[in-house]
This record gives sequence, C-alpha cells and structure tokens, in this order.
Amino acid sequence: MDRAALAAFLSREFPQVAGDYAVEEVGRNRALLRLRVDDRHLRPGATVSGPAIFALADVAMYMAILAMIGPQALTVTTSCSIDFMRKPAAGRDLLAEARILKLGRVLVVGDVLVRAEGGADPVARAGLTYSIPPR
Amino acid sequence: MDRAALAAFLSREFPQVAGDYAVEEVGRNRALLRLRVDDRHLRPGATVSGPAIFALADVAMYMAILAMIGPQALTVTTSCSIDFMRKPAAGRDLLAEARILKLGRVLVVGDVLVRAEGGADPVARAGLTYSIPPR
Amino acid sequence: MDRAALAAFLSREFPQVAGDYAVEEVGRNRALLRLRVDDRHLRPGATVSGPAIFALADVAMYMAILAMIGPQALTVTTSCSIDFMRKPAAGRDLLAEARILKLGRVLVVGDVLVRAEGGADPVARAGLTYSIPPR
Amino acid sequence: MDRAALAAFLSREFPQVAGDYAVEEVGRNRALLRLRVDDRHLRPGATVSGPAIFALADVAMYMAILAMIGPQALTVTTSCSIDFMRKPAAGRDLLAEARILKLGRVLVVGDVLVRAEGGADPVARAGLTYSIPPR
Repeated sequence: MDRAALAAFLSREFPQVAGDYAVEEVGRNRALLRLRVDDRHLRPGATVSGPAIFALADVAMYMAILAMIGPQALTVTTSCSIDFMRKPAAGRDLLAEARILKLGRVLVVGDVLVRAEGGADPVARAGLTYSIPPR
Repeated sequence: MDRAALAAFLSREFPQVAGDYAVEEVGRNRALLRLRVDDRHLRPGATVSGPAIFALADVAMYMAILAMIGPQALTVTTSCSIDFMRKPAAGRDLLAEARILKLGRVLVVGDVLVRAEGGADPVARAGLTYSIPPR
Repeated sequence: MDRAALAAFLSREFPQVAGDYAVEEVGRNRALLRLRVDDRHLRPGATVSGPAIFALADVAMYMAILAMIGPQALTVTTSCSIDFMRKPAAGRDLLAEARILKLGRVLVVGDVLVRAEGGADPVARAGLTYSIPPR
Repeated sequence: MDRAALAAFLSREFPQVAGDYAVEEVGRNRALLRLRVDDRHLRPGATVSGPAIFALADVAMYMAILAMIGPQALTVTTSCSIDFMRKPAAGRDLLAEARILKLGRVLVVGDVLVRAEGGADPVARAGLTYSIPPR
C-alpha cells in the first residue's frame, strides 16, 4: 500500500482518529507519520499526553506493516515497550519514524522514534510487536 | 488522596478524559480504575483499542501514585511496557488493578493488570515507571 | 512436569547453569525458582548482576511453562521487559515467582517477581513472552 | 573514555566476563561491542542463550555511557526491554550497536541492535535505561 492507500484505509477503518494523523512517507519496512497536535492531545504542563504519543507510535508501526502486507485491519499490537524521554515543545506536531526489524509470518517486530517537528532530540522511542491474523 | 479526592483531581486536571474513568478502589500502594467503554474506544473487530487500554493502565498507576504522594500533576510516565493478551468481550467495561512495587524519591515502579468486568482472564498487563518532579 | 522432572530436565539440557538454580515450587501456571547466589553472579558494589537476575527470571518462566506443556526444550523467549528496582542484600539467595497470564497455542505471556530471600520488597519484576515451537 | 580505557575498565571491574567481550568502536553517544561466542553462551538448538544476548546488550550500552561520563562503575541498569527476533547462525560472533538517545543528569536512555557478524538481519533489539549515581 502506498501513502494514498494508507490514508484512505485509515479514514475508512478508523474514522474517529484518522484526522489526527498524516502519512508523510512510506517505504520498504518503514513509515513516517505525523500527529497533528491539538488541545485534546495535551495534558497538564501543556505537553502531549503519553497515550497520544503511544497511539502515534502504534499507528506509525501499523502503517509500516500494512504498507508491506496489505490492508489487514485485524493485525493487532501484542506488545509495546515505550520510553518517554523529553517533553515535546508546545505547538509543534510530532513525527514518528517506524521501522520494521522482523517481518515474520505471524509476528512483526519493529521500533519507532518520535520527534517534535524541527527538533533533533527524540521525544520517545518504542519497540512494538504485532500479530498478523492467519489467512 | 482518597477516592473522592482523586476523582475531583481527574475532573479538574484532565477534563477531556475524566468522564471515561471511575476510581473504584484506592488503597496502600494500589488503585482499581474502571474504563467506561464507549464506541470511541473501539477499533475494527469491536475490540477496545490498544491506546485506550494503554491510557487506562497509565491513569490507573497515576491514581495509585497520587493516592500515596498527593496531587502532583507533573508526575509523568517515563516508560511503559505493555502486553495485550486477549481481545476483551464487547460491551464490557475494563478494570485496571494498579500496584506500586517501588515508591522511590524520584522514580516509582509498578504494574497493572487489566481485565474485562466479569472476566477472569487478563486482557493486558503493563509495567510502568513514573518520575516524580523535585519539590 | 513436577519439581523433580523439571530439575532433571535442567540438569540434562542446561548442564552449565543447572547448578545455579533450585526449583522450589511448581503449580498450575506458576513456579518458584531459587538462584543460589555465588561470587560469579556479582558485580561492582557486591550486588547481583543484571544479567544474572534476567537469567533467573527467564528460567523461572521457562520452568512454569514446561510444567504446563512438557519438556519442549526449543520453547524460546521472544521478549522480556525487566525493571531492576532494588539492590539485593549481599549474601542472600534470590527467589523468582513466575506466573503465566496467557498460555496460548503459540505464545505464552507471564510475569516474574524477584525477591531476596527473607526480604519483603521486590528486587526486580519482568514481563516475558515465550514462543512454543509448532509440533 | 576511549576504546583502550573502556577495555581496561572492563578487565579491572568485571574480570569474570571481560574476556567475553571486545570493544570494537566507540563514538559520540555510541559503542559497538563484540561477544566472542563460546560454548558456554549456547543453549539447546546451538543458539546463543537469551541471557548471553541480554548481557551483551547491557554491557554495550554501559560502554557507550561510560565513554561519555567516565568510569562510574556504580552506574546501574534500571530497566531493559528486549526482543529476540532471530536465532543467530552458529559459530558467529555477535555485534551489539548501542546508541544513547537521552543522556540526562540522572537517567540515560538508549537502544541496542544485535547482529551476528556478517549477517544483515538483527538478532535482537533492546531499549535500556541506566541510572547514574549522584556525585
């Protein structure tokens, strides 16, 4: 699936959140996803909430996987380990770079680095495992 | 902080999400939090989304910590490792049991078990670390 | 497999490390494993090394799984997330309590709590996932 | 600390395991460490054991950190999340590339990618957090 196909998939399958995200780039075993940061993603201290960053990492990896295996909506996250490292600057979008490290028949393992737009230092990193449903 | 104080804190500091949760029980080094499952928490397959379960675990541990240290809103999650084990039954609330394993001066470590109401088998488990701001 | 069978399995399949461990208890979805702490498990500061604690948690979960599914040596760890919380007191054995949370056909998920013998506070906790080879 | 200083530190502080490792490269916020794979690192199936890979990742990150902050032996691992992705080919050394993502005053966060020598695909990845003792 390419960028346009992934964006259409998100809008169709996840209408409640699709507007939060923009698929910026897609390539072999990778995807770059933008979170359009909005008030509802913030928590006290005007920082983006942990769940919003988790969701960004999760969707970024999902996009990277679907780009490789096609629109299998029932592909599910089985585990995620995430480190929150820095408070992102207020008023900046976040960008998540997802990378697939193993694309198995049943399990996919990858990691994600999250940065604020225009910032060099990572805001968060995550390792994720997805399970692909049997066909 | 007791149940009523935690509920008031959630409503004041996190007005966008406070309605999703109910603090069921609070005790020494523990808290039990309910997610009132709603359409907006679901994903394809009618299962509760990973980010919604992550947020539940995160808030449950936050409640357990604030019950011990008081209303320090800037206490932040520094890491979370979560396993999604079972698809929760549709139409059931989720209950997250948070347990503090180490309440340090700077870092708090704990874990959370998430079950569907009325279900015996865990839906997810998470280990979380929080950082307490210096006073 | 019961305690004696697990001990025999460890000696046969892992002769290099079997002497480090003693299977203390085995039950439904659980096992309690002792690390006989020795100089070679220590690191500067006279504390048990991270890798020795990791190995203890890993073997404890392995024992809990084999007790349920039998002697399948090729069952392998696919992921582990471990928090090191306290420096164990010198000269004490460590005890790891492993608990299976999901015993699937392909994946097993569980967690482990490590304590020093006679100590109340946990030294470490781990969440582990194992993969069972197809028969 | 440069390569020679790190190797000398390992030999002095960790004489039991220093011979297992060779510091291949050290740079700003990174280190490359070799595990000289030996029979005692293997488990059934002739694959390198999980604890041996964990220890490699842990020491690689430790080397990367000490290269930046100097010989503070009491710097300790506070958490590690590791995914074991592929069985390494027998008879190959393992190489761990450690990268520091945040070098804070108290906590250091980084990740490690482990490959078999001459292999393209990663064997394991880990995210690690270290705590630096107060001076």
